[in-house]
Amino acid sequence: MIKDKSFLIVGLGLLGGSMAMGLKKCNHKIYAIDIDKKAIDYALSEGIIDEGSTEADSQLVGKADVIISGLYPSLIVEWIAQNQQHFKSGAVVTDVTGVKGAIVDRIQAILRPDCEFIGAHPMAGKEVSGVQYADPAIFIPANLIITPTEKNTQRAVSLIYDMGRELHFDNICELSVEQHDKMIGYLSQLTHVIAVSLMNANDSKDLVKYTGDSFRDLTRIAKINENLWTELFLMNKENLVQQIDAFVAEISDFRDALVQEDTEKMKQKFVTSTQRRKYFDR
Amino acid sequence: MIKDKSFLIVGLGLLGGSMAMGLKKCNHKIYAIDIDKKAIDYALSEGIIDEGSTEADSQLVGKADVIISGLYPSLIVEWIAQNQQHFKSGAVVTDVTGVKGAIVDRIQAILRPDCEFIGAHPMAGKEVSGVQYADPAIFIPANLIITPTEKNTQRAVSLIYDMGRELHFDNICELSVEQHDKMIGYLSQLTHVIAVSLMNANDSKDLVKYTGDSFRDLTRIAKINENLWTELFLMNKENLVQQIDAFVAEISDFRDALVQEDTEKMKQKFVTSTQRRKYFDR
Repeated sequence: MIKDKSFLIVGLGLLGGSMAMGLKKCNHKIYAIDIDKKAIDYALSEGIIDEGSTEADSQLVGKADVIISGLYPSLIVEWIAQNQQHFKSGAVVTDVTGVKGAIVDRIQAILRPDCEFIGAHPMAGKEVSGVQYADPAIFIPANLIITPTEKNTQRAVSLIYDMGRELHFDNICELSVEQHDKMIGYLSQLTHVIAVSLMNANDSKDLVKYTGDSFRDLTRIAKINENLWTELFLMNKENLVQQIDAFVAEISDFRDALVQEDTEKMKQKFVTSTQRRKYFDR
Repeated sequence: MIKDKSFLIVGLGLLGGSMAMGLKKCNHKIYAIDIDKKAIDYALSEGIIDEGSTEADSQLVGKADVIISGLYPSLIVEWIAQNQQHFKSGAVVTDVTGVKGAIVDRIQAILRPDCEFIGAHPMAGKEVSGVQYADPAIFIPANLIITPTEKNTQRAVSLIYDMGRELHFDNICELSVEQHDKMIGYLSQLTHVIAVSLMNANDSKDLVKYTGDSFRDLTRIAKINENLWTELFLMNKENLVQQIDAFVAEISDFRDALVQEDTEKMKQKFVTSTQRRKYFDR
């Protein structure tokens, strides 16, 4: 386990706040930087963090053994570039970003050689944002995916595993940056595009009272932070477009079978989906 | 409430069995016909039904005040045509079928004038089938939709309302046959087509360990009875094709916005879906 470490959370939102709470329980020192004074004040008053600032305070930045970026993906590279001069030598920097290809190489290319960036993606969240909704319980059923590159040391990889265990993630595993982004394009981003498109395909306010669980399950994630997800989608554009195309080809194939009343083909598709879905039963 | 009635369930599967159990608790007489001897034997041994037969026993058929068809949609018209000679005069016949346009008019056109058919759709189910999984609790969070036509009497409509209350449905409401089939094409059938197509778009067995709740939620209904759903889809083909086309147009529009990096359009779609989904919060 990790001992006597200090963590700096940069961007104290839902995920950063939840990590702060979970790590604080393990008796680590927790610092935070967020431009929103309310977020810092709330976290201080609730004992979620030990110290906080609304600016990139060089003293706070310099005290951290581990820096966790909870920033929007578009801000992370620039923040590191501007503040790395103050990092403690040997600091490990990590993140929570849902795409990796667009940032990992860029950060590792610019980072001071005596520090180390290792990408991490806690696959956890809620339909709300902000530190006031933070709750380390969101990690308990979730995956933590680590995306090490050839530039990473075993020391840094082990540290993220240890941190993930302290946060009680259900599963911690490693993927390459490319594998991660392809997987996330299918399992997460495509599912969000589908939910949003299903919700938008009809103005269905008058249908609420007839709605069962299927429709609610498929549209739960249609409640979505438009700024964050627009960034995430653009940063994984090529993978996501491929996944959308594969899905549209599949649903169009189903449509054609229905139009042609090709019952054998329809049944085969149902049998395949039933078999495949069984692998995902918990 | 209904008093001293006898119900005949024809086709004792998950839904028919669950209705039998719920109605039995209200002290009605429950009879059942199913070609599967195991289903009848099980239901008799568990006290789910009072009498049962594997054939369309004319005595059993003739004793029922209410006949509930739990048959596959393709069988229901023929079963009524073949057996109505034995129906008790004044019997009310109803069903559980998920599409209505393909059957209601046909049944009402052939049914004896001293009996009455009124369509009903309990929007409840499980991912398993068979009377051994029957459980009247599936109706508690569910909708019962009644689809009366101009041929129906208030007596029959009231009877189905009363039956729905005895089964503790969360909501009981009326729709025209056309409204029902259009609504079900969007809220239920399209969602199943999406779940099946998402599951089939990739062979994703190796992705199980990275999978979060979003993907599981969107594919839960990809486990599907291929014979029943093929029938239901073909019987509502026109509505379902329209819904698939509207959905594919919407997701294609999203794809184009992504390819063109039209962030304003993407954000607008997220905002719309978020607003619309809020109506569906419980």
